[in-house]
Amino acid sequence: MFVNEKLQQQILFLKEIDDLKQIFRQTVLTKDRRQENDAEHSWHLAMLIVVLSEYSNVRKFDVSKTVKMALIHDLVEIDAGDTFCYDAHDRVMKGEKEREAAHRIFSILPEKQAEEFINLWEEFEAMDTPEARFAAAVDRLQPLLLNFYSEGYAWREHGVKKSQVVERNHHIERGSKELWGFAKALIDESVERGYLQDG
Amino acid sequence: MFVNEKLQQQILFLKEIDDLKQIFRQTVLTKDRRQENDAEHSWHLAMLIVVLSEYSNVRKFDVSKTVKMALIHDLVEIDAGDTFCYDAHDRVMKGEKEREAAHRIFSILPEKQAEEFINLWEEFEAMDTPEARFAAAVDRLQPLLLNFYSEGYAWREHGVKKSQVVERNHHIERGSKELWGFAKALIDESVERGYLQDG
Repeated sequence: MFVNEKLQQQILFLKEIDDLKQIFRQTVLTKDRRQENDAEHSWHLAMLIVVLSEYSNVRKFDVSKTVKMALIHDLVEIDAGDTFCYDAHDRVMKGEKEREAAHRIFSILPEKQAEEFINLWEEFEAMDTPEARFAAAVDRLQPLLLNFYSEGYAWREHGVKKSQVVERNHHIERGSKELWGFAKALIDESVERGYLQDG
Repeated sequence: MFVNEKLQQQILFLKEIDDLKQIFRQTVLTKDRRQENDAEHSWHLAMLIVVLSEYSNVRKFDVSKTVKMALIHDLVEIDAGDTFCYDAHDRVMKGEKEREAAHRIFSILPEKQAEEFINLWEEFEAMDTPEARFAAAVDRLQPLLLNFYSEGYAWREHGVKKSQVVERNHHIERGSKELWGFAKALIDESVERGYLQDG
């Protein structure tokens, strides 16, 4: 069936990542309130990047590389699972597990492509380039939007407080001061509407 | 809450498209065999484009534009719904419904962005540029892969025959002769394994 070994590796990778659709997150969809999965989240993130790129602090940055980052940033969770961002203990554990996962999953690809994807994932994690900072910013803004438009569903479920939301999301500012300004207003409005506990 | 009207329009668009996660397709996931939705499909498509771009018939083409096409190509189905690709009657009806949907959904965005997205969607539909042809090719290859790796689940459910699969998918060749070669081998293997009816 396979005409060449390289294509075989690529197809097997594309089959493997189908499992991202089965990794569920804490945030729920705005309409039917079921949990979102990582594949849907990654798609939505890519859309946020395309639509909101003008708000990056750094005006000239590589939008297409940032989209690619968004598409692959959660693939490690196929092995490592999703960590709820307000769970401090799990956050410490997950670094090592995710690095191992990146190597296993991306290494299904031909060597050069594997290397490129691992580097892109490492760049995202390090949050040191304009692309990684903007990707990280929208990666925080997207669940904020879902939480707001689902009337604080996941926040209320987990008894999350405003100060935690501010602490976990303020790095939006490193990618976009403008979007952080909007996020803060969204957080305040959430408290006012009773979606999020004050304090 | 909204600092400027432009950002408000963009956020409302990003909220609207959350509903793509609720449009379910006939193909099922390879592992847990539940129906795939359009947001997951769009993400997977973008990944196919990134990973398989070297197989495009036209060597120099705009990969990042093609990814963008994949991300937005199914948004019209929020209004128009999914049409099973082996249902000839529905296919005729859907053109008009989808065009209306494109105008309603993309027009939530600021004017310039709305225009850009409508044009991109029209370009995808017309299948006349290297980008649109490659996007259309992987848009057919992705469900083939899911069907193969789910042992022909959707094909068997709908009593689909090999000749229908060849007829509906042969335009993969316009985007990539190499991927069409692979797809044909996959179809033959599917018949051999009893995933797909011959004839």
